[in-house]
Amino acid sequence: MPEPLPTLTYTDGLIPVIVQDAATKTVLMFAYANEEAVSLTQSTGFAHYYSRSRNRLWKKGEESGHLQKIIEIRVDCDADCLLYLVEQTGCACHEGYFSCFFRNINGSILLPKLKNPEQIYSQR
Amino acid sequence: MPEPLPTLTYTDGLIPVIVQDAATKTVLMFAYANEEAVSLTQSTGFAHYYSRSRNRLWKKGEESGHLQKIIEIRVDCDADCLLYLVEQTGCACHEGYFSCFFRNINGSILLPKLKNPEQIYSQR
Repeated sequence: MPEPLPTLTYTDGLIPVIVQDAATKTVLMFAYANEEAVSLTQSTGFAHYYSRSRNRLWKKGEESGHLQKIIEIRVDCDADCLLYLVEQTGCACHEGYFSCFFRNINGSILLPKLKNPEQIYSQR
Repeated sequence: MPEPLPTLTYTDGLIPVIVQDAATKTVLMFAYANEEAVSLTQSTGFAHYYSRSRNRLWKKGEESGHLQKIIEIRVDCDADCLLYLVEQTGCACHEGYFSCFFRNINGSILLPKLKNPEQIYSQR
């Protein structure tokens, strides 16, 4: 039986979002969303975020075509962090890796580079 | 061949940390760390964080015994977020679930409750 809808906490208007590939369970990226981005993510079925550096809402893949189809949205115990489970088209990372977490803290690269960054942003 | 060590970006002294169970790839929790917490995580091999509400460094499991043994620490492309891959003892969530992300945005509970919260904090 569904519990009451969790009331999400936005700090300075933003909530952190962890993004995980639903099929492989790879953690893909980390971003922030505002209320509008969460609402658009739910209504369109594609991941939206809020860019703090560009001060605007963005749809993941709007330029690169690397869309994230939403499979499920989870909420943590304190309702101050979201987990988007997605079906990732292409690669999540703007550097051309499937995941933004492509290296360890010692600097070793752990994943293959799928695309060159120039390729990602010139294909549309 | 290892690349140069990533220079981590701490915003207001903190870096966000995603915590994932290394064996099952379940995303367990989300927290923040300061430089000292990251350093202690590396030197002790157990996850440390910085609590913004309590304004202090903490070792995960220091009260509950639910320690997180570090398997690997990954860094994202912008070096402003960490991913701890851990071996979780007991449950990560203070509410008694294996993961803090135990429900979806509609409020449905998706995981079994492993322990009662009272049980977690009275066992030591």
